[in-house]
Amino acid sequence: MNFLNEVTMRFPRAVSFAPGRPFGPLFGDPERMFDHARRYLAHLAAEGRSPEQVREALFQYGPASGIIRDLIADSLRLDEGIVVPPDAVVVTSGAQEAMLLTVRALIAGQDDVLLVSTPCYVGITGVARLLGVTVVAVPEGPTGFDPATLDEVIRAERARGRRPRACYVVPDHSNPSGNTIPLAARSALLSLAARHDFLVLEDSPYRLVSPGRQLPTLKAMDERRRVVQLGSYSKTFFPGVRVGFVVADQPVTDGAGRQTLLADEIAKIKSMVTLNTAPLSQAVVGGLLLEGEGRASAFTAPASAFYGDAMRHTIELLDRWFPADRREAIGVRWNTPTGGFFLTLQVPFRADGAALARSAEDYGVIWTPMSYFYPDAGGETSIRLSVSYLTPEQLEEGVARLARFVTAEAAR
Amino acid sequence: MNFLNEVTMRFPRAVSFAPGRPFGPLFGDPERMFDHARRYLAHLAAEGRSPEQVREALFQYGPASGIIRDLIADSLRLDEGIVVPPDAVVVTSGAQEAMLLTVRALIAGQDDVLLVSTPCYVGITGVARLLGVTVVAVPEGPTGFDPATLDEVIRAERARGRRPRACYVVPDHSNPSGNTIPLAARSALLSLAARHDFLVLEDSPYRLVSPGRQLPTLKAMDERRRVVQLGSYSKTFFPGVRVGFVVADQPVTDGAGRQTLLADEIAKIKSMVTLNTAPLSQAVVGGLLLEGEGRASAFTAPASAFYGDAMRHTIELLDRWFPADRREAIGVRWNTPTGGFFLTLQVPFRADGAALARSAEDYGVIWTPMSYFYPDAGGETSIRLSVSYLTPEQLEEGVARLARFVTAEAAR
Repeated sequence: MNFLNEVTMRFPRAVSFAPGRPFGPLFGDPERMFDHARRYLAHLAAEGRSPEQVREALFQYGPASGIIRDLIADSLRLDEGIVVPPDAVVVTSGAQEAMLLTVRALIAGQDDVLLVSTPCYVGITGVARLLGVTVVAVPEGPTGFDPATLDEVIRAERARGRRPRACYVVPDHSNPSGNTIPLAARSALLSLAARHDFLVLEDSPYRLVSPGRQLPTLKAMDERRRVVQLGSYSKTFFPGVRVGFVVADQPVTDGAGRQTLLADEIAKIKSMVTLNTAPLSQAVVGGLLLEGEGRASAFTAPASAFYGDAMRHTIELLDRWFPADRREAIGVRWNTPTGGFFLTLQVPFRADGAALARSAEDYGVIWTPMSYFYPDAGGETSIRLSVSYLTPEQLEEGVARLARFVTAEAAR
Repeated sequence: MNFLNEVTMRFPRAVSFAPGRPFGPLFGDPERMFDHARRYLAHLAAEGRSPEQVREALFQYGPASGIIRDLIADSLRLDEGIVVPPDAVVVTSGAQEAMLLTVRALIAGQDDVLLVSTPCYVGITGVARLLGVTVVAVPEGPTGFDPATLDEVIRAERARGRRPRACYVVPDHSNPSGNTIPLAARSALLSLAARHDFLVLEDSPYRLVSPGRQLPTLKAMDERRRVVQLGSYSKTFFPGVRVGFVVADQPVTDGAGRQTLLADEIAKIKSMVTLNTAPLSQAVVGGLLLEGEGRASAFTAPASAFYGDAMRHTIELLDRWFPADRREAIGVRWNTPTGGFFLTLQVPFRADGAALARSAEDYGVIWTPMSYFYPDAGGETSIRLSVSYLTPEQLEEGVARLARFVTAEAAR
């Protein structure tokens, strides 16, 4: 990603489809953060805590598993129909820490491997690199995650003596491809997890800020406790809050031979990484959930509408610049996500760093080579477009520039 | 530590010398936190940022290395005479993350080892366990860290083909022993680091809340960039802020062959652990530093006085209960730290979990077996007493109970 950052710095006037960030103007007034924190502290007082206990909750060291587990468990039930006890929740310093803790908890032996539906989010491969964990790519098909491929990869790994312990997926409007796992494939993934004895790591940060009805989460469909859900409030609320969570209700036996939950083991690991998540940040999230009468989704309608419009608008613009006949003649195509921040553009040339530099310098448009999201080889002729960080005017100008660039490259 | 937690839960009325926590009543009003954050945001505006840029600093993803590096670098100069550029600072989610990132950055090969002055803080051994890093204990002498022992340990490690890469010390009022490294030993440590080519990891969370003049930090004495300083605001401000930092001004060559600072490599690792430290927490720390005209020490006089009094009072009480002749007859002794939270009590019996259970149940007093702080064997007849979390009345009652317990155990 360093090269991408450099290109972005060198061409500040380019329209950039690179950053997978929330749209800034959706954020409110900073004073509202303090209101949310106050609401949570008032809630603690209303629950019977003394003023001194409330102060200690905010200022003192706290439990590694967090102080808003109950509110998060409530919101999972109300927003997603996921029924888990608060004890199964660990609050983390963002979903990135949730990944680190979970992978560290699950992958122990030399022969253990982490399966990753690919192309994949760089956060999960970064964690694996940090921990020295072997990643095995499970290539997406043309419409996304493919259970048959997963089955083949697992059999091949088993045959060479390795043990797939977990499979990481972004089931809804994936980063980076924009693909969504269909319902039947979700069921198939859960069956495979039970059959081959691995856990599914479900990471779905975009679903609550996507328009319309979403498919059920894997965790909501999880009858056999095969799913560990990784949660993020970066898109639902805002990235700066740095609060995420893990839902891990799997029964395990701890070092002392006691029956406990995987969440407890994850909390122990957290105590060696960040001790506990900043209580002020937890108080802001807690206050937001309380204001939403328990639901995170109470606040996400404006964001869902904005990102949904951005995605539709981008696809319309691509259709306009590349009508069906032209599209075929040049060899360009794209998927059509109904939500999330990203879509995949297939192009008839190598979409590498050199192409990106030409695009930025000669056409004033920046994007991310999809090959950056493959642990091994792959994605050499694909582009990730992020639509989340641009105004409608920037989208118009950006797609126009992109169309000129792609047309010129195709003719080279 | 689990057993200690269980004992603490089972005997809630016992006086506990176990928790190494700041004293709660020193914390202010939660509303003051919001004032600090506001002051930092006003500072950004005064520096010329637009209202939208200020909002983005608080709400958006931010740089992995942090947003208050300049203020931290200023405070290190004003408080400690440490002169480093802001680029050498990485803001972390507490000192625990600082340890994880630094150990991960420095210990790469199978033969690399981490030296740890022992008894030692469990945070550092936890990080090593998490990362699969080999820890080699460097036993403290009767007055604390001993350069001659370190030299011997390094030679022995070298002789067996291992490569000591870093040595972790808490130079001021150490957790757990309470010992302080004298000036001559600090110089000797820095000379050894240069001679044997390793880095010193300096962790000193207690010095700004200790009374009187402190010895210079290792980093302030560091003429050859042999020291990486790990910073914490948990005692200086409050634990719930979850902000720490690393100072790493060592020149290194990155993966692409570019000259950079170790801090940059540490920031890259942070982007795989927590992405960035919550900007709201950074804003609170930034606002405090601004209010203190750049100094963290502007606020620590009440805490220094409180903890200094607690330590003196505890030592007076031990003197009263164990006058010199009695002390010798029983075989009890203790060190006399001039600051920090902890002191070491040597006893004439095995101070293990069973003894702790008897102490809690029969005498109503809890403490931490010093053996918990040894990576291998050691400390079997020592106790860590923490004086930070008790009122003067609790100290009086606690030492009285402890004296009765120790006397009874000695007579068993």
